[in-house]
Amino acid sequence: MRHMLASEARLQLPQWLMGQIPTLQGNYLDQNARMELAISLARQNVEFRSGGPFGAAIFDEKNGELISVGVNLVATCHASIAHAEVVAITLAQMRLKTFNLAGGDRHLQLLTSAEPCAMCLAAIPWSGLHSVICAARDADVRAIGFDEGYKPSSWQKALEYSGISAIADVQRGQAVAVLELYRDGGGQIYNA
Amino acid sequence: MRHMLASEARLQLPQWLMGQIPTLQGNYLDQNARMELAISLARQNVEFRSGGPFGAAIFDEKNGELISVGVNLVATCHASIAHAEVVAITLAQMRLKTFNLAGGDRHLQLLTSAEPCAMCLAAIPWSGLHSVICAARDADVRAIGFDEGYKPSSWQKALEYSGISAIADVQRGQAVAVLELYRDGGGQIYNA
Repeated sequence: MRHMLASEARLQLPQWLMGQIPTLQGNYLDQNARMELAISLARQNVEFRSGGPFGAAIFDEKNGELISVGVNLVATCHASIAHAEVVAITLAQMRLKTFNLAGGDRHLQLLTSAEPCAMCLAAIPWSGLHSVICAARDADVRAIGFDEGYKPSSWQKALEYSGISAIADVQRGQAVAVLELYRDGGGQIYNA
Repeated sequence: MRHMLASEARLQLPQWLMGQIPTLQGNYLDQNARMELAISLARQNVEFRSGGPFGAAIFDEKNGELISVGVNLVATCHASIAHAEVVAITLAQMRLKTFNLAGGDRHLQLLTSAEPCAMCLAAIPWSGLHSVICAARDADVRAIGFDEGYKPSSWQKALEYSGISAIADVQRGQAVAVLELYRDGGGQIYNA
């Protein structure tokens, strides 16, 4: 290998999503409006072929202000860590200029179109997130061929161990439809 | 919050480490030489106050060519994912322009100055790494106050589940000395 060692890694949202940022900003008052955004990001990530069928967004738990968005960028950014949840967490931390989303009395909430894989599940407690809401289940993700990793028997229990509340199955059907859209379109199943 | 949503996250090695890259490149023939580099990075990260007391490096398993380096950048890069292992994995993937380090017949090996936390343990199988060698144990890291997360009872079993071989306790004493240097210097214990 003749190249220099890399000294910088960049995770960048796809062009279509960067273009939407001005219109996405604002307050999303209930969990349905918040989940609609996460699933819409997942669907568009499939339609624009910018990554896997997963979307996420972080909100202020109380007033619903949108803090960050994320989509799966594993293949496009050449980064196996770039799951939608990790992208949303990291972009929220960049914006707030802190590794701890719980600082300054903040209560931030992650909405994700699918139950977190083993890595994301363990990344959430380090982030300072206050609560997590998921749509599709682990079994739905595995059903289209993705591996979810070596997970604790209950993902909710794993989060509650760190004082993070967790809600499952919100708009599960809509999220499963996005997974199936990806599978039916011949989307790449990495880590199978 | 009045700022725009963030659209890009950057993880950048500290200046002192970027300056060393030309001299670090090369082949490290045995596991002791490889681990010495990982622990030296951890120690310098403490001495230069650029992050937590953790270092990592990725090598070609056979010829020992250095592929990437990583140090803990959680506080300095404002990113809770920026553990030394994640930094080394992501920089290796950036350099090779692929999310899969196992592509092209590569067998890559991660040396890390401490046993991976729950997040890093789950990130390793997604990376395509072939083997992992650790110095300090989970208990050594917890002993200076860091949390390691909700981990499987055996980290080695968790990796072997994904076909990744794992070796513990290589130069454990030297790595523990770096942890103690950090604690004694009043280094920040986040995620406590």
